[in-house]
Amino acid sequence: MTHHYFTPQIYHTTLGSHEPVLRIEHGDTVSTTTVDAAGKDASNEQVTPPGNPQSGPFYIDGAEPGDTLAVTLDHVAPNRRVGFSSGVIAPNVLDFGHVPAFDDDINYLEWGIDSENGTVRALGMDRLNNLILPLNPMVGCFGVAPARGQAISTATSSTHGGNMDYRGFVQGVKVHFPVFVPGALFHIGDGHALQGDGEIVGTGIEISLDVTFSVLVIKGQEIGWPRAENDTHIMTFGNARPLDQAVQHATTEMIRWLHTDYGLDTRTIHVLLGQVVEYDVGNMFDPAYTMVCKVSKKVLADIT
Amino acid sequence: MTHHYFTPQIYHTTLGSHEPVLRIEHGDTVSTTTVDAAGKDASNEQVTPPGNPQSGPFYIDGAEPGDTLAVTLDHVAPNRRVGFSSGVIAPNVLDFGHVPAFDDDINYLEWGIDSENGTVRALGMDRLNNLILPLNPMVGCFGVAPARGQAISTATSSTHGGNMDYRGFVQGVKVHFPVFVPGALFHIGDGHALQGDGEIVGTGIEISLDVTFSVLVIKGQEIGWPRAENDTHIMTFGNARPLDQAVQHATTEMIRWLHTDYGLDTRTIHVLLGQVVEYDVGNMFDPAYTMVCKVSKKVLADIT
Amino acid sequence: MTHHYFTPQIYHTTLGSHEPVLRIEHGDTVSTTTVDAAGKDASNEQVTPPGNPQSGPFYIDGAEPGDTLAVTLDHVAPNRRVGFSSGVIAPNVLDFGHVPAFDDDINYLEWGIDSENGTVRALGMDRLNNLILPLNPMVGCFGVAPARGQAISTATSSTHGGNMDYRGFVQGVKVHFPVFVPGALFHIGDGHALQGDGEIVGTGIEISLDVTFSVLVIKGQEIGWPRAENDTHIMTFGNARPLDQAVQHATTEMIRWLHTDYGLDTRTIHVLLGQVVEYDVGNMFDPAYTMVCKVSKKVLADIT
Amino acid sequence: MTHHYFTPQIYHTTLGSHEPVLRIEHGDTVSTTTVDAAGKDASNEQVTPPGNPQSGPFYIDGAEPGDTLAVTLDHVAPNRRVGFSSGVIAPNVLDFGHVPAFDDDINYLEWGIDSENGTVRALGMDRLNNLILPLNPMVGCFGVAPARGQAISTATSSTHGGNMDYRGFVQGVKVHFPVFVPGALFHIGDGHALQGDGEIVGTGIEISLDVTFSVLVIKGQEIGWPRAENDTHIMTFGNARPLDQAVQHATTEMIRWLHTDYGLDTRTIHVLLGQVVEYDVGNMFDPAYTMVCKVSKKVLADIT
Repeated sequence: MTHHYFTPQIYHTTLGSHEPVLRIEHGDTVSTTTVDAAGKDASNEQVTPPGNPQSGPFYIDGAEPGDTLAVTLDHVAPNRRVGFSSGVIAPNVLDFGHVPAFDDDINYLEWGIDSENGTVRALGMDRLNNLILPLNPMVGCFGVAPARGQAISTATSSTHGGNMDYRGFVQGVKVHFPVFVPGALFHIGDGHALQGDGEIVGTGIEISLDVTFSVLVIKGQEIGWPRAENDTHIMTFGNARPLDQAVQHATTEMIRWLHTDYGLDTRTIHVLLGQVVEYDVGNMFDPAYTMVCKVSKKVLADIT
Repeated sequence: MTHHYFTPQIYHTTLGSHEPVLRIEHGDTVSTTTVDAAGKDASNEQVTPPGNPQSGPFYIDGAEPGDTLAVTLDHVAPNRRVGFSSGVIAPNVLDFGHVPAFDDDINYLEWGIDSENGTVRALGMDRLNNLILPLNPMVGCFGVAPARGQAISTATSSTHGGNMDYRGFVQGVKVHFPVFVPGALFHIGDGHALQGDGEIVGTGIEISLDVTFSVLVIKGQEIGWPRAENDTHIMTFGNARPLDQAVQHATTEMIRWLHTDYGLDTRTIHVLLGQVVEYDVGNMFDPAYTMVCKVSKKVLADIT
Repeated sequence: MTHHYFTPQIYHTTLGSHEPVLRIEHGDTVSTTTVDAAGKDASNEQVTPPGNPQSGPFYIDGAEPGDTLAVTLDHVAPNRRVGFSSGVIAPNVLDFGHVPAFDDDINYLEWGIDSENGTVRALGMDRLNNLILPLNPMVGCFGVAPARGQAISTATSSTHGGNMDYRGFVQGVKVHFPVFVPGALFHIGDGHALQGDGEIVGTGIEISLDVTFSVLVIKGQEIGWPRAENDTHIMTFGNARPLDQAVQHATTEMIRWLHTDYGLDTRTIHVLLGQVVEYDVGNMFDPAYTMVCKVSKKVLADIT
Repeated sequence: MTHHYFTPQIYHTTLGSHEPVLRIEHGDTVSTTTVDAAGKDASNEQVTPPGNPQSGPFYIDGAEPGDTLAVTLDHVAPNRRVGFSSGVIAPNVLDFGHVPAFDDDINYLEWGIDSENGTVRALGMDRLNNLILPLNPMVGCFGVAPARGQAISTATSSTHGGNMDYRGFVQGVKVHFPVFVPGALFHIGDGHALQGDGEIVGTGIEISLDVTFSVLVIKGQEIGWPRAENDTHIMTFGNARPLDQAVQHATTEMIRWLHTDYGLDTRTIHVLLGQVVEYDVGNMFDPAYTMVCKVSKKVLADIT
């Protein structure tokens, strides 16, 4: 149950079987930092090339293929006062042939982050001057090393996690990843001060983070896709294109979870999900889109 | 501003240019009933063949192609004490090749509706005996006659509305439909006492309804897809497969709305939606899926 | 076995349960004409509004829901010397965000049709002056009235056929449609002098046609999707978006066909299709795309 | 212009920046072998783990990011007398909910390869005893190392090539790959004696190969996706899900090619492709599907 304080020196733009930067144990906690999507740190200095650079990987002793790695996000907070976003909605979420007519060429935009008051505001956009949005710090890209020696770009996601860009990955959430390699090799980066559903401009409000996370290894629990839980819901994640396929993975993973961990028979699961399931959109920008399948813990409490 | 009380005698399983059952005017209100998806009425009697039979069409005087019809759902309430659902999740939301192993053959299930206490519960499912869900009455299928003489099945949806199966179509919502034919020809039916996101078992808790709605004709306002607003959000609807394309229609329609009615320039819209847009899943069961693009009214109040 | 000579007076832009224009019998042949997609006839005169207007419907005595209607295209030939095409590839087959930079605004283009020599050439396109393409007259849109009172736009397609825009629908092909209403109600129109795969500019070379077709009613044969055969292949058609789903329908229909008519067991069908199946792209422009699943008759002759 | 004879000792199941096995030069030719998808060699001995193991990578001197690598398949021939296939069509090409009813559990099947007579036949399938199919040896998976340090599984494909499973990749074809890393790092494997369109059973007739290929480096030619040419056509490849997106990449790449290398203006390209484009289906099994966009060389000869 050691609490490690770790300062990253190198970053990776793939999730892969890279040399571990730190070895930790089941139950340990790590406090570290992440650079923003562009490779800039808490001082807004460029310290590594852009592309969702990841801190890590962290080697968790005892994690083996076929286990599950549980990561709790104990603390997620911006560590500087300015973030950035794009100013262009991705054409893949607009009608075929719809070409936006912009009056300017602002495709890079700074946002002021006020952590004390928990707010975010656009800088230099006249019409948005009075718009004060609530800060909602989240992790855009994190996960474990994938199977068969792959090194998967931090631009995308799959069964190992990766760039899911879901605005529910906030402080307090516990996330489960399947383990594919010894030590799991956990990576984390790509913080957002705020993000709309779908990350449809290709960025949230990109920010460097102070992060503290704790890890548990669940031996012998084999899961197919990332899972998570917060105070109100359990959640499963499907990462694929099109959205339809992301839904298929997330829903099927939820069925497995309800069956094995909640002891529900297939019929009860189908009847129940039909009337209580909720879906969130993670991202609709990356090569793999992300859909989230959710079930309320209150509902589960009443039947189990 | 007449309040009509109308008892349906015939029902339609397409939205089309059928003989109007009632002529009403801008500002009028209609109280009527709808049968459930199976064609059963408030007495649970089969009064018409199944397939989301619609009450109507109602002819709104003065509505012409190129106008918008605004329909406010003033009152939406179950008018009997038992609903039904399917017990099988549609294979299109499950992994390819995932075949559920059921212990029984329950694919038709009754639910008790307690309107006094605002609750719903499954009947005859042991594991769900203690699960009391909140009643959330909604309209599954409604809309106007489509263009060019089409008669479109109430199993699906398009620019004219139709079977969108969105659980946000509840009492209090105002919905806008493009008008394609003189009189608009408004149809309504397919009530649900409750429904999960996506209507993934192909039904909500299907129920006959008492419905009251009011209509306004917005002359010369041409919209591309259904729109709606409730107390907290404005919403646009895209109906298509795959989900990706439904998202494209809904998002592009939202951009048009923010531009024409809120006076926002293209850049402001793109920057804003990137960080505040929300998406809901309507249905992922019908031939056309439905995605909902939402923007908070609170956000809009701060910038306009 | 009557040979009817029929001159259309009215045209429809939906396939639906319209008043029949002619009653014919099993074994009969009809010689008639079709206008082009824009509603122009053999004299290039506008005789009906645009939108793939159909000749018909023809009522085939004895055809009942659950039967199959077999239509052989005995003769398909342009009946004038000029056709037209669009000059813009549909954005849905181009990369998201790819905006073509045209030097001109030619989005309507005439083509010369030389039926004697069996050739087609673009008129007024300098770079295409020396390009002489082989004439390949085909039927873009045909089919039967759909079920449950629907009237489906000739812009799209489904189980009833419709606007499939497949360049294999040429003279000599026999096409099977499921029958949904008494008399089947066969419609035909939208001739192309030539068309690329996918109809990616939204048109072939649009032309009015002289058409002769013969009909057979196959009693009690229930099929799920259109089927066809020519000298070399049997073919099944799936109409849906995305292409993936069109493939699913076409492939599953082929499996059914091989099972019921060729007596092949499921394993043999799977093994065989794996190594011999062929797919053609019908259209990738209409609301529903079309994919064609093909099996060589030579292969079938060797195993049955 | 050296002709290298190379015997592989190691194999990779990702395309990545692995240690080169041989350094070759622009104009060189390599004769080597590939194991089958299961890792078995010419003696049908297991020499490496399964999963489309690749021979290589071959380092081509002088190839730099931004160049194109041209690989001509001079010789592609099975080097043993037995291949294998699966016997189950992938559920993703079948209707949702269609569950095949097999009478046996044959999901691994051997095929006899007769290279002298150029034929292939299934072994031990009664109904297929008389079916003699023409041998069509092809390369299922080949390509170069991807960008940004990725190592991409040989189960899938992207801009770097990979597991495209297109039955047109036969002897005589010249294939162009974008170069992402110094030396390009060319990999090759996964031979098929024969394959249907789409590789819908997840295998062709899997076989080890004798392969001879020649390489050219085209300096400064930057392409977006793999391209190829054979005697009759030029071809571009899009690798993505769904098929619609694969089509988008392939078509847009074809437009770029016709513009830069054939000097055609945008309008001429759009008009031309509309009436002459052809599409082939590569695979519809892998995580990324493959679509092929083709233009006849005869057509191009007439306009350039």
